[in-house]
Amino acid sequence: MSATLSANLSATLQLAEKIVALRDAPLNAEAETVAKQCLLDWFGVAVQGAQEPVADIMTSELTRGNEGTHSIIGRREKASLIDAALINGTIGHALDYDDAIPASLGHATVPVAPTVLALAAELDASGEQTLRAFLAGYEAECAIGGYFGPDHYARGYHATGTIGAFGAAAAASLLLGLDAHQTARALSLAATQASGLKSLFGSMGKPMHAGRAAADGLLAARLVARGFDAIEDGLENAQGAGPVLAGLEAGAAIDVTKFGTQICGTLFKYHAACYGTHAPIEAARDFLAAHDPDDIETIEIHVGTMTVGMCDIETPTSPLECKFSMHHTVAMVLAGIDTSSLDNYSAEMAANPRLAGLRDKMRVVGGFEDEHGIMSAKLVINTKSETLEFYRHTGHPNDDLANQQIRLEEKYDALATPILGDAANALKQAVKNIKESAHVHELMRLAVPA
Amino acid sequence: MSATLSANLSATLQLAEKIVALRDAPLNAEAETVAKQCLLDWFGVAVQGAQEPVADIMTSELTRGNEGTHSIIGRREKASLIDAALINGTIGHALDYDDAIPASLGHATVPVAPTVLALAAELDASGEQTLRAFLAGYEAECAIGGYFGPDHYARGYHATGTIGAFGAAAAASLLLGLDAHQTARALSLAATQASGLKSLFGSMGKPMHAGRAAADGLLAARLVARGFDAIEDGLENAQGAGPVLAGLEAGAAIDVTKFGTQICGTLFKYHAACYGTHAPIEAARDFLAAHDPDDIETIEIHVGTMTVGMCDIETPTSPLECKFSMHHTVAMVLAGIDTSSLDNYSAEMAANPRLAGLRDKMRVVGGFEDEHGIMSAKLVINTKSETLEFYRHTGHPNDDLANQQIRLEEKYDALATPILGDAANALKQAVKNIKESAHVHELMRLAVPA
Repeated sequence: MSATLSANLSATLQLAEKIVALRDAPLNAEAETVAKQCLLDWFGVAVQGAQEPVADIMTSELTRGNEGTHSIIGRREKASLIDAALINGTIGHALDYDDAIPASLGHATVPVAPTVLALAAELDASGEQTLRAFLAGYEAECAIGGYFGPDHYARGYHATGTIGAFGAAAAASLLLGLDAHQTARALSLAATQASGLKSLFGSMGKPMHAGRAAADGLLAARLVARGFDAIEDGLENAQGAGPVLAGLEAGAAIDVTKFGTQICGTLFKYHAACYGTHAPIEAARDFLAAHDPDDIETIEIHVGTMTVGMCDIETPTSPLECKFSMHHTVAMVLAGIDTSSLDNYSAEMAANPRLAGLRDKMRVVGGFEDEHGIMSAKLVINTKSETLEFYRHTGHPNDDLANQQIRLEEKYDALATPILGDAANALKQAVKNIKESAHVHELMRLAVPA
Repeated sequence: MSATLSANLSATLQLAEKIVALRDAPLNAEAETVAKQCLLDWFGVAVQGAQEPVADIMTSELTRGNEGTHSIIGRREKASLIDAALINGTIGHALDYDDAIPASLGHATVPVAPTVLALAAELDASGEQTLRAFLAGYEAECAIGGYFGPDHYARGYHATGTIGAFGAAAAASLLLGLDAHQTARALSLAATQASGLKSLFGSMGKPMHAGRAAADGLLAARLVARGFDAIEDGLENAQGAGPVLAGLEAGAAIDVTKFGTQICGTLFKYHAACYGTHAPIEAARDFLAAHDPDDIETIEIHVGTMTVGMCDIETPTSPLECKFSMHHTVAMVLAGIDTSSLDNYSAEMAANPRLAGLRDKMRVVGGFEDEHGIMSAKLVINTKSETLEFYRHTGHPNDDLANQQIRLEEKYDALATPILGDAANALKQAVKNIKESAHVHELMRLAVPA
């Protein structure tokens, strides 16, 4: 297939070729391991996210009166193919506890995993094709994240939604066996549906972006497979996603040289809040290790431009708003409250006077830029006697994949076992062995409570 | 309800109040007449659009395996509520023969009509509430079109898709009985789903924008009615639709003084091509009235910035591309081919050597701006002996609504009768009497072939 296209392709077709080639190219061993870790982590956070109010609302609206055949993770209802992607995409991001990767400017697993799992069930695809499709979608997001650049996010777009639609389209294109031209059309149909504004952060709208992306990208590829007509240059067209959503020049080239391995840069979350809060959390932990929080007079949280407006809610009131507040999460650390436990993000905690008092001492200052983007922060803390600075970044993936596997399994067990019981362990083993699985729909069956 | 909100509201809430108030405010008589005309014209173009390949593909994908209860216009399949809005929204725009209004920067009926008709059937709403909901959605689109301004369209967004999502959300909010705060949340959820790129013009992606808008806006309102959480300032928030999609200042005010009457500016199509081609078509007809096309050496088509990139395909090959080509439609006029007949937009006509020869003499020149925007054009025609100029604009609605009714009924009859037979007339009468109808779902029943 790839031999039929020239080496000097435009951006969308060049990316499409890479996606198609992943159907049978050798897989990078590390990338394969991390892809399985992403899926395992997704199952854990999604099974637990399925118990959230946003999951109740979305599921009840979309399954009302429909008799679909597709599983909804962590729940007993069934939905149509596209609605399953919408619901499961939303559910996976409900806790904001899923993985992230700077290359894609956001959360790359959550729009892709539900798409490939629903479509694999529909097509009775093998585990290996499903894993390859997942990787293709994930890598497409990273390539487009590099193409758009951070300006896309700074403009106000929630990249998990906008870029996620391309990821879902890429993954579905691979599973559906589309050729490079068809895949470019699917990517272009994803481009024209790409949406998601950062102003919805702290509301149920944020997880919905991931669901919207999953469903829209899946529909794009399904329609193209049926002969739906579209352009093949949706990224670089003068009125394509690059120029319109990211301010690129028309015809800008894309870098796909790292396609297939960027997933190795995935960062997993061990604090249950927005990724932008993690560096301030770690810096506050450094302060706490040797100082007394009662001595604090003021705290400046210095972060990059992208972090401002992402997680700087000064006075959170809901659990979700707590997760998007550097003020609140830093206050939690200083008050000795565990930031890894989901239960600690609550309306009660938001109203806690001690935390409110600590929040009132803080001020977020933008303009602190380094190579780690939203993954870095500097705290400037004035105590009664001195001014202290604490810098942290959380922008490096864990190089020790075996250690990462252990930590992720602990996190998965804590999230999935209360919901799935014994099946949680069976699902964990099935994800580990997904490449050898003949029938991927087994995984979704295990992810539904008995 | 409106008494509970202050007079000095932010943009989204101010618009939401206007929408809520339309539930029982007196209707402007002209607006009511034009609203019914919009619905009649929509039924005609949608019933015929339902026979297009894009309708086949979309319907077969979304009705496969689902047993929905909602009618698909002009077809026998059934779909779920949200999918019916997606399919019928796409179908209504398939021919690009539906109405347009400069105030909304696009086609304002097509994302709203399918939403209110599907939802009215679901709720068994009365004809009057349905008509009011349609008007609310339409007027919301006009208010947001004025808010965003033409720069939104010039950036590359297809306003029928982006602004259409707000229209569908507004209309659904009224029918669902949401209050102003809930309506503001629904508008904000529409904001974060708003999408559609002009690069898809000339492909099936364009009509899909209208369907996407219809479905997304409807889902937004349905979710809010179930308690879905969202912001209430999705328009004017620093990272809301105004700043992100249209470059507005954060907190920009909205003008809602004309809310409820802007629909009177609706322009109906009597040429079956993109509205941007109509002024060049009319100018070419002026030339033809007194000159010989064989004398033409070159033609410059001077149009505004918004028209360039909208319908300037130099060498169309498909029926759809013909509709988005000023070159081709002007060539049709000069060759004496009827631009009102759907059948004349074809691949054969695109390949016609006489038309190709005429197209080769043309050049589109941007930068010709006047108060009519995409509704005006100037042709500069060099013949063997002289240089002639022909200016036309098509930006004025017909002041004679009775005459407009006659022309629209002729157009409707030609489009609907071949598909619906005798039911076409019954449907026409039902639309005229919609305000007195107790059960609106009758209309969709009549719009399905026997």
